[in-house]
Amino acid sequence: MILDKITEKVLRMIDGEGFRQEGAFNLRQNGISVCHGDSQHVKIRKKEDRQGIDIYIDKDTKGESVHIPVVVSASGMTDVVYNDFYVEDGADVTIVAGCGIHNSGCNEARHDGIHTFHIGKNAVVRYEEKHYGEGEGTGAKVLNPVTDIHIGEGSTFIMDTVQIKGVDSTVRETNISMEAESKLHVTEKLMTHDQQEAVSNMTVTMDGDGTSAQIISRSVGKGTSRQTFHPIAVGKAACHAHIQCDSIIMDQAQVRSIPEIDARNVDAQIIHEAAIGRINNEQLLKLQTFGMNEEEAEAVIIENFLN
Amino acid sequence: MILDKITEKVLRMIDGEGFRQEGAFNLRQNGISVCHGDSQHVKIRKKEDRQGIDIYIDKDTKGESVHIPVVVSASGMTDVVYNDFYVEDGADVTIVAGCGIHNSGCNEARHDGIHTFHIGKNAVVRYEEKHYGEGEGTGAKVLNPVTDIHIGEGSTFIMDTVQIKGVDSTVRETNISMEAESKLHVTEKLMTHDQQEAVSNMTVTMDGDGTSAQIISRSVGKGTSRQTFHPIAVGKAACHAHIQCDSIIMDQAQVRSIPEIDARNVDAQIIHEAAIGRINNEQLLKLQTFGMNEEEAEAVIIENFLN
Repeated sequence: MILDKITEKVLRMIDGEGFRQEGAFNLRQNGISVCHGDSQHVKIRKKEDRQGIDIYIDKDTKGESVHIPVVVSASGMTDVVYNDFYVEDGADVTIVAGCGIHNSGCNEARHDGIHTFHIGKNAVVRYEEKHYGEGEGTGAKVLNPVTDIHIGEGSTFIMDTVQIKGVDSTVRETNISMEAESKLHVTEKLMTHDQQEAVSNMTVTMDGDGTSAQIISRSVGKGTSRQTFHPIAVGKAACHAHIQCDSIIMDQAQVRSIPEIDARNVDAQIIHEAAIGRINNEQLLKLQTFGMNEEEAEAVIIENFLN
Repeated sequence: MILDKITEKVLRMIDGEGFRQEGAFNLRQNGISVCHGDSQHVKIRKKEDRQGIDIYIDKDTKGESVHIPVVVSASGMTDVVYNDFYVEDGADVTIVAGCGIHNSGCNEARHDGIHTFHIGKNAVVRYEEKHYGEGEGTGAKVLNPVTDIHIGEGSTFIMDTVQIKGVDSTVRETNISMEAESKLHVTEKLMTHDQQEAVSNMTVTMDGDGTSAQIISRSVGKGTSRQTFHPIAVGKAACHAHIQCDSIIMDQAQVRSIPEIDARNVDAQIIHEAAIGRINNEQLLKLQTFGMNEEEAEAVIIENFLN
């Protein structure tokens, strides 16, 4: 189908690989699944009992990408969707699941994506999620994702979340349970500006022996925005976890970081590091001596910090 | 006055400098102030409205120690005491304030010391607090200290707390507010064994520009004991804070660390590090090749870790 200009622009912001109507995909627009496709190994089925889709990824899936972007461009809309991912043993898949809101009206536009991952054994799942807001209206752009992930024995889950611009309010809930020998890598990038608020709660429970988890969160707070991070790592077995949260604050922003490490097994090794501070002054000066003005220099440092 | 053998032994455990009935001192035993003395610069007065003492430390106090130990040796006793410290501008003082419980009965013996520090400008206060429990009885030994500290402009507060042995349950509440150019150094050492439980909540609020806070917590959990740390550093001004919590877990112990860093000013720089893990295996093996058995090697590593 032919997409409108606004949807095309929003898709460019939230789908880093580039959204195309081929292979396994599903585009949800203003609460409706407007187009979808299956591939040989990935089947997408509409849920019958509520809004959302079931995505079946079979064991022979190797290096395939599944694109399931969501665009909300109707002011005043609240879109709640339940997506379930069933990943068979041994599959290797990338899921690209951004959400963008274009709000040109004065009412709140909101999307709550409730994603549940059921991951078998020895699978590799990359999950990319970009959140973005735009629009000349005064209505708020709100995204409240819930992500529940069960990682089966020997599987790897790589989660990249990015929210750089335009989302007025977000409360993110992520719950991860890990079976033996499974691996988790989470990278969270967040920038808030103006009066935006962002909360990220994440609980990782390492249930099985030989599990390892790495969570890296980088954030920048500008304007009068507020951010709260609350990652929790619970070690119930022989496991390793490393959590790192680094934040830059600018203007009158406020950043709170409340990591929790909870070792319930003598062989649980859990490390946490967090730092909040302003932009490095020496770096700023150095870039300014190269001919940049202060704003340009700040932009370069922030971009580097987030990448 | 002549002290009984139990009190003398407990005092040796909780007063590192050695308790003597000279200078400024106050010994509280089973809820009663049994002996006390003043010095030229430090006056101790009994409170008239409730249990406890007011300690007045004048501006000319230089390098003096004030000893105010508490001993509880009566099973079934709950002793609640309010001590207020008034430290004048420019004073330099060390306060030694341990508490030891000898419980030979089957009922709980408990001491709650509520200490409040009112510290003027440019003063230096060292506060040492050792907690200890012993006794052949089955009754629990419980210590729930509350410490409120207001650090005046340009002043330094150094707090050393040690709880190594014998305290069955402790809930520690510490609240610290800091005026401009003040400094805080906190060292917390904790070892729990058997079924002991220890909770430490600490909130440091850096209200003034130029403040700096360093909190170092080291703990060892043995047996089926449980520990929870919840340090909070709030930066409301141009300030530096560094929080470090390291824990060793052994046996079936559980250790939870929930540090919170909260930057509300663009010039607040706050860093947190936490690590929980088992005893370093290589160190253990090395010490065993030197002829120690496993238990001895563990004891050496733990002692080094806590010192």
